[in-house]
Amino acid sequence: MSKGFLISIEGPDGAGKTTVLQQMLPALEALGREIVTTREPGGVSIAEAIRSIILNPENTEMDDKTELLLFVAARRQHLMEKILPPLERGALVIIDRFIDSSIAYQGFGRGLDVDDINWLNAYATDGLKPDLTLYFDIDVEEGLARIACNASRDVDRLDMEKIDMHQRVRQGYLSILEKESDRVVRIDASQDLATVTAQALAMIEEKLKV
Amino acid sequence: MSKGFLISIEGPDGAGKTTVLQQMLPALEALGREIVTTREPGGVSIAEAIRSIILNPENTEMDDKTELLLFVAARRQHLMEKILPPLERGALVIIDRFIDSSIAYQGFGRGLDVDDINWLNAYATDGLKPDLTLYFDIDVEEGLARIACNASRDVDRLDMEKIDMHQRVRQGYLSILEKESDRVVRIDASQDLATVTAQALAMIEEKLKV
Repeated sequence: MSKGFLISIEGPDGAGKTTVLQQMLPALEALGREIVTTREPGGVSIAEAIRSIILNPENTEMDDKTELLLFVAARRQHLMEKILPPLERGALVIIDRFIDSSIAYQGFGRGLDVDDINWLNAYATDGLKPDLTLYFDIDVEEGLARIACNASRDVDRLDMEKIDMHQRVRQGYLSILEKESDRVVRIDASQDLATVTAQALAMIEEKLKV
Repeated sequence: MSKGFLISIEGPDGAGKTTVLQQMLPALEALGREIVTTREPGGVSIAEAIRSIILNPENTEMDDKTELLLFVAARRQHLMEKILPPLERGALVIIDRFIDSSIAYQGFGRGLDVDDINWLNAYATDGLKPDLTLYFDIDVEEGLARIACNASRDVDRLDMEKIDMHQRVRQGYLSILEKESDRVVRIDASQDLATVTAQALAMIEEKLKV
């Protein structure tokens, strides 16, 4: 096992994951250990090239299994280059989206078999799971409204999905939360930023003490 | 089940697969059914984009599992767009490289677990296997010498592999041949073109009669 500590943050776009992570950073850095933050595909050249295929709005003919296999391929490469090396040095690694995104989006969202996705995730990660997963839960309409207000962000192929897809994604996350309550904790992301940040930090600090 | 008939042709580059296929075409067309020839990734836009990542000589950091997952993703997309529609129309579909290439190259060549590759192939193809596979067998040195003489073809990342990799790939094909002798037949590709073509045609015609 690695000496490091791996945290994933999950939830829909618009739940504020990235903002909260930035807010937490000073307090995390004060813990006195190396902190690495990354997101899939996280600036890894091969994984970025894969992501550009996934998100290209012209690729409307993409099969659901193709999409899943591409996400898993990008996950593998990102893991090998950006997650495992700092974990092996003992760092606290925080990743924006990881294995649960495939369960929620490709499994519950698209309807692909969840056992198959679990197999693929385990294959790509050699069985590595996060020590802690923070799930940022928000009402679907509220999350989408936040994205719509963010003019700095272009709409990509995945944003164009219908609202019932996003409802199924949320059910997927809630299902993971129920099944893996030792690993996954829910944060009510509709609260104000300071409260969400404080709660997320408290959950991380509690888990690090165990 | 589909009404069509799926043939894959396998073996190392340099074994003459493409040339023999072209030579066979007039006789195959005379059989009186629709003939579709394709190759992975076969002009499918998403699969070609994936292939360009796999073959990019700059991607030296690519992990073996990433490579396999990308091949399997491209296989899925190509299957859905180019193989299944003609098979469902009853066509005879001939594909240059398919599931066995992953066993031979990523399994025996790179050392990835063959059971895992079988799982991934079955996932990507929904369990579809060729009705017949022609394995073009050739001595490794002779196959590489033929590639070296072909000035029209650029050297890509996979050509740069060491010769012992190619030896392991051949052992992989021979292993598949031994295990799946009902599906896979060996053709001695060191023979002259007319002989190889005649043998390949005879094997296809025999299988179509069954």
